[in-house]
Amino acid sequence: MANPKAAMLVIGDEILSGRTRDSNLWHLAGELTRAGIDLTEARVVGDAHATIVAAVRALSTSHDYVFTSGGIGPTHDDITADAVAEAMGAAISHRADAMALLRAHYDRQSLPFNEARQRMARIPDGAVLIDNPISVAPGFILGNVHVMAGVPNIFESMLASVLPRLTGGAPLLSQNLRVMRGEGEIAGDFGRLAEEYPDLSMGSYPFQQNGAFGTNLVIRGTDPGRLDQAMMRLVGMFG
Amino acid sequence: MANPKAAMLVIGDEILSGRTRDSNLWHLAGELTRAGIDLTEARVVGDAHATIVAAVRALSTSHDYVFTSGGIGPTHDDITADAVAEAMGAAISHRADAMALLRAHYDRQSLPFNEARQRMARIPDGAVLIDNPISVAPGFILGNVHVMAGVPNIFESMLASVLPRLTGGAPLLSQNLRVMRGEGEIAGDFGRLAEEYPDLSMGSYPFQQNGAFGTNLVIRGTDPGRLDQAMMRLVGMFG
Repeated sequence: MANPKAAMLVIGDEILSGRTRDSNLWHLAGELTRAGIDLTEARVVGDAHATIVAAVRALSTSHDYVFTSGGIGPTHDDITADAVAEAMGAAISHRADAMALLRAHYDRQSLPFNEARQRMARIPDGAVLIDNPISVAPGFILGNVHVMAGVPNIFESMLASVLPRLTGGAPLLSQNLRVMRGEGEIAGDFGRLAEEYPDLSMGSYPFQQNGAFGTNLVIRGTDPGRLDQAMMRLVGMFG
Repeated sequence: MANPKAAMLVIGDEILSGRTRDSNLWHLAGELTRAGIDLTEARVVGDAHATIVAAVRALSTSHDYVFTSGGIGPTHDDITADAVAEAMGAAISHRADAMALLRAHYDRQSLPFNEARQRMARIPDGAVLIDNPISVAPGFILGNVHVMAGVPNIFESMLASVLPRLTGGAPLLSQNLRVMRGEGEIAGDFGRLAEEYPDLSMGSYPFQQNGAFGTNLVIRGTDPGRLDQAMMRLVGMFG
């Protein structure tokens, strides 16, 4: 059976302006690969309501799982929850469970639970909360859309609590052969090997070292036996 | 007049599997911001023909400029040129100008100009070549689509030769105020200020330092006078 397919939606003007270098896509990609879920697309959009709505609709229709990062804080540019609610046709309000979590958190610190902070309790009807062990304000799961924070350590801890609930397939395994030859030299034989193993994915990634060209040849697949077999052929060719 | 709008398409299985952390989006975002071109969307797709064709079509229709990275090398998984040609309705072949460039390069190094290397001369009809000062194999511009290499130093040098040809608008300027207060504390006043300046974009980015919460307040816009004015108001509130 094919692995489930996932998409990521990174939300935030700061990524598209170059202020912030996103790291959540890279983290999610590695975690999903290990979990046997195929990340097949990612999109980055700014803090614009209609754009987020359209992207969530497109991705949630075409994928088994969608993961979003960013835009769930207390400020005016945090509009992800409302956009996801609209995209999925859900009502949204200051939900009692999230209000209680946040009120207790700010009470403990003797900080006012003001209007801005209450904004983080806006959660769509029918959504399941995602725990935030770092700064309390929760993420949520609505349908197949998993809404998480943009701050990397919070994103990572939310993902860690979400992943065990997901049904994954076979983890994508990979093996790497590093050869000190240029891509153009190995491409012919490598391409023919890839044709012989249509169930595996083979990629080549050039590098330079001390002025010499080398290539990392990567074989990916879910069947360890097939992977070993193809890697032995590769070693026979270029090892 | 509004700035031109751009989109980026990152192409490669290695990004979606978590093997490689993309850096080209971050680089492009900063360069376009300085050039007065608004990057409004980015997508990451794998090495799959139909997916690349669909993404190029969608992005080239909805944006003034599209920039792609990855998939223009000599191996079987390098399928970007053919996919872009199909998306834009152009024929593609081993073009004489690209063949000549590459043949001279490999002749100089006494390396065979084999079938795989000739693959890098597949350029759509009507495309303008983009110079590659590092490894010679050219990128190209077809319509509004700028096709560049995925290897970061080659991507960056190709972008540097392309950028001066593009018509940009006013560079997006930004000013930053760092305050040692949590987002929830400043969100109300900050949001009201943002409403007073609809021509500027204001964002807040929380951080932690020695266990205390702080926030970077960022104001972005193209008019330096308006930016200064809004920043003075912000300093008056929180400085």
